[in-house]
Amino acid sequence: MIVGGGKTARDYIKPLRDMGVNEGLLDLVGIRASRLNAYTLTLLLGDRAYPEVPGSIEQFLEYWATGRIVVAGGFQPGQSTNAVSALVAEATHSDILYNLTTVDGVYSDDPKRNPKARKLDTLTVKELRGIIEKNKAEAGTYELFDRLALDIIERSKIKVVVLDGRDPWNLIRHMKGEKIGSLVLPD
Amino acid sequence: MIVGGGKTARDYIKPLRDMGVNEGLLDLVGIRASRLNAYTLTLLLGDRAYPEVPGSIEQFLEYWATGRIVVAGGFQPGQSTNAVSALVAEATHSDILYNLTTVDGVYSDDPKRNPKARKLDTLTVKELRGIIEKNKAEAGTYELFDRLALDIIERSKIKVVVLDGRDPWNLIRHMKGEKIGSLVLPD
Amino acid sequence: MIVGGGKTARDYIKPLRDMGVNEGLLDLVGIRASRLNAYTLTLLLGDRAYPEVPGSIEQFLEYWATGRIVVAGGFQPGQSTNAVSALVAEATHSDILYNLTTVDGVYSDDPKRNPKARKLDTLTVKELRGIIEKNKAEAGTYELFDRLALDIIERSKIKVVVLDGRDPWNLIRHMKGEKIGSLVLPD
Amino acid sequence: MIVGGGKTARDYIKPLRDMGVNEGLLDLVGIRASRLNAYTLTLLLGDRAYPEVPGSIEQFLEYWATGRIVVAGGFQPGQSTNAVSALVAEATHSDILYNLTTVDGVYSDDPKRNPKARKLDTLTVKELRGIIEKNKAEAGTYELFDRLALDIIERSKIKVVVLDGRDPWNLIRHMKGEKIGSLVLPD
Amino acid sequence: MIVGGGKTARDYIKPLRDMGVNEGLLDLVGIRASRLNAYTLTLLLGDRAYPEVPGSIEQFLEYWATGRIVVAGGFQPGQSTNAVSALVAEATHSDILYNLTTVDGVYSDDPKRNPKARKLDTLTVKELRGIIEKNKAEAGTYELFDRLALDIIERSKIKVVVLDGRDPWNLIRHMKGEKIGSLVLPD
Amino acid sequence: MIVGGGKTARDYIKPLRDMGVNEGLLDLVGIRASRLNAYTLTLLLGDRAYPEVPGSIEQFLEYWATGRIVVAGGFQPGQSTNAVSALVAEATHSDILYNLTTVDGVYSDDPKRNPKARKLDTLTVKELRGIIEKNKAEAGTYELFDRLALDIIERSKIKVVVLDGRDPWNLIRHMKGEKIGSLVLPD
Repeated sequence: MIVGGGKTARDYIKPLRDMGVNEGLLDLVGIRASRLNAYTLTLLLGDRAYPEVPGSIEQFLEYWATGRIVVAGGFQPGQSTNAVSALVAEATHSDILYNLTTVDGVYSDDPKRNPKARKLDTLTVKELRGIIEKNKAEAGTYELFDRLALDIIERSKIKVVVLDGRDPWNLIRHMKGEKIGSLVLPD
Repeated sequence: MIVGGGKTARDYIKPLRDMGVNEGLLDLVGIRASRLNAYTLTLLLGDRAYPEVPGSIEQFLEYWATGRIVVAGGFQPGQSTNAVSALVAEATHSDILYNLTTVDGVYSDDPKRNPKARKLDTLTVKELRGIIEKNKAEAGTYELFDRLALDIIERSKIKVVVLDGRDPWNLIRHMKGEKIGSLVLPD
Repeated sequence: MIVGGGKTARDYIKPLRDMGVNEGLLDLVGIRASRLNAYTLTLLLGDRAYPEVPGSIEQFLEYWATGRIVVAGGFQPGQSTNAVSALVAEATHSDILYNLTTVDGVYSDDPKRNPKARKLDTLTVKELRGIIEKNKAEAGTYELFDRLALDIIERSKIKVVVLDGRDPWNLIRHMKGEKIGSLVLPD
Repeated sequence: MIVGGGKTARDYIKPLRDMGVNEGLLDLVGIRASRLNAYTLTLLLGDRAYPEVPGSIEQFLEYWATGRIVVAGGFQPGQSTNAVSALVAEATHSDILYNLTTVDGVYSDDPKRNPKARKLDTLTVKELRGIIEKNKAEAGTYELFDRLALDIIERSKIKVVVLDGRDPWNLIRHMKGEKIGSLVLPD
Repeated sequence: MIVGGGKTARDYIKPLRDMGVNEGLLDLVGIRASRLNAYTLTLLLGDRAYPEVPGSIEQFLEYWATGRIVVAGGFQPGQSTNAVSALVAEATHSDILYNLTTVDGVYSDDPKRNPKARKLDTLTVKELRGIIEKNKAEAGTYELFDRLALDIIERSKIKVVVLDGRDPWNLIRHMKGEKIGSLVLPD
Repeated sequence: MIVGGGKTARDYIKPLRDMGVNEGLLDLVGIRASRLNAYTLTLLLGDRAYPEVPGSIEQFLEYWATGRIVVAGGFQPGQSTNAVSALVAEATHSDILYNLTTVDGVYSDDPKRNPKARKLDTLTVKELRGIIEKNKAEAGTYELFDRLALDIIERSKIKVVVLDGRDPWNLIRHMKGEKIGSLVLPD
């Protein structure tokens, strides 16, 4: 399980950015905030989780070798926690990566700006890349996956399911066969 | 420099306590929050600070050996970051410990409940212990130092200066000889 | 399993104290001695034990995640290994903590000074605290539990059984239902 | 100083790829090979270098705090050691990054395929990105910088000098003011 | 499983030796090369292996506690990876150590120099020591075991089987009872 | 500075050996005892020493990079702390190694058994090896240096001075030019 820095990251980064701290160090603070989130989740999972948060993919694999769930936050400046998910999915030979986010799937365009945007049930990585690049060029706010994440799921042919994580039961619903979210397939 | 978990710690601990997480694990989350604060301060100090936050007094001493400022948060459940300050002051043979807090000194009683309480310019550790124990018995909210901190400053005869840290320049003012805050002297 | 520094700790600390080493550093030497004892016990337990001695509660939990017995010594200056036991019992959600010591239970007073002192079969944490504080005030030698240990077993409602560990079979006898030692119950 | 995996990485990766090992694990082997190269360089630098190779930017900063030269290899799958250089340059607030490679500068096009390609004395990051993307699209072999490296030097306005490292004295020559290589300037 | 540095070690050490690097540091480079080999083997073993390479016998035992195969390279300058095998066999209470090498067993003398040398089906550690010391005195090239390895298998009465590892199936053949290789028995 | 396990090591090892613990694990306990001695010495050296005890030559070099004195105990089973001294002397490019022991120099034979044994002012490594091997063969108690230590000082041409360490001022006396102890020269 990989979690982002969320509100805590934004709250810590904002005043530091105003004070002129550079982007690399801001990312490091955001990573630490995501690890605080990951640590909290670890405690809630109790004995099922490894009780420490890994700082790199190599450390992730060591914790993983104990047979426990490993909860990670960020690994490195310059990449999102989506990239961490993809790195972990690849290194653990996973077939599928669940991305629980704040929208109910991948849209053909940014739904906030384009009323004709429609949710896609299935799409290819190449199509996903096209949608992201197109929107990124203009706004930079519609980013389900960063490029490193896309590169990795593409080269290792990992399927991705995008679900609305605001209701975590959607994960169970999808596993039981309900038709929700979007499925991103290798090209 | 030792920093507490502050608002972040409280924000993370509250929902977890409501979910029934035990006090030992809640303390661990609070410790991680204090380390996030410490890490942020580390970045602001730049090359003057060691770029990592120690998890124990032994690790603190290793980082300290590089000649850099070391910024720590919590070390262990069941103790405050005041105890961490005292442990660090003792292990580094410090003569004096500056405690920057949200009041302008030590009062003879809790000023919120006793209008006759007056700020003490100088007091002994024994007197400080008396004031804290008396107030703790009733309310538990007026805690400048926990008992481990008191035990350590007492056994190693470390002077403590309590200052109002809401204006950090008070530290400089005190060092220049201005008569502010309270001085706690060995018995 | 948590072990103290015993004779080795005392033998190393005495000459250092005579040379003026401060109490914080003496505690660090005592902690290392207790870890030597813990390591030795680890080897005797063979494959059932994790083959390394943790230096903090966070490290304890990592070793514990392998499913092996973890043997610890001290964690930090300013606290006894009783405090370590309580920290570990709390973090592992244990119901009961066995304290194997050199007396056969908790007495109503220090048996060396008060001939009327009698062993208590059952007592509350509050009563235990009263007995310890009372004796501590005068002598400082009758200390089954330090205050941090008391605080933790109280806040997390951990039962404590005090047994005479000079005969380790007492542990088995108690588990089989024999009425030996003293039982300390949450208030 | 950051070094790549070179021939050793290629020699180890090739048979593993033939055996079906996935790209993430192949990258991990390449990273280890680059660390062997880094370690070797460390030894040659003697007391001027920190005697260990960092595995992450966080570890890099810790070693860096000793005041020694730090030699790193790769950090993470999915990125080149150029990305490592950019991460390090940013985190250490460097103004300039020297990239010693096997060509004598940046060309307007791939010189192997386009005889009209000419070396550029100065160019912007944006122009560099254009040249790389254009060539990548077709061949994937002409890659001075990966995208993460470009993103970082762009966001933190780090100047890059590309030099022919087959003659390491070019570094000294450039520092003395000789007009060699290419200078990449922030947009 | 313990692996040596092989060709990679020799390729890295040779130019460094020509540059005057001392033998202790050359050994450190050889150790890192053996760890690269060990890491590669780790990846090929997948989930059966612990995903990191230990740097000491103490670390080996920690990884071993997870129940996975541990693949090690060198531990320390001044000793061969045969010594590492013997250290590991002893610390894990192993009865037998398989040495897969480039000859098909132990010979009564160096077969390259003495045409009358014959393969020994069974021999004692003392006899093995005699053969090695005799040949070492003259050439230094015929070294199945270094002295530390011999000391350890002798003191802990570990049986050794020497097999031709150029065909790894020999290991299975020997385990099934085929009469190949040489068996070294405690005195 | 390298220290042995001394009386503590012997006191811990004896009962374990009687209980059948194998020699490899007994060595590990002895190593931990030597590290307790090293840690104690570290504290006495205060700010001049690095405040942690290294567990391997690689860790030694990292601590050494801070510019502090590093105090080590044992590194590995199967070798004495003399071997550790030699490994450290070699890795730090030292010209000379001071061996403070319980005799006042190297004797031509074991003085306890041969009344004609005389102290040697100067000898070669080869002569030292001869004396040690001869006495080892019979008794095993007269061991100034183990073979790994001899191999290393020989291959890296390190001078050794053997002094009576029961009076530590002998170290200063020798440095000031007094003719005490024995000097072991490269062949």
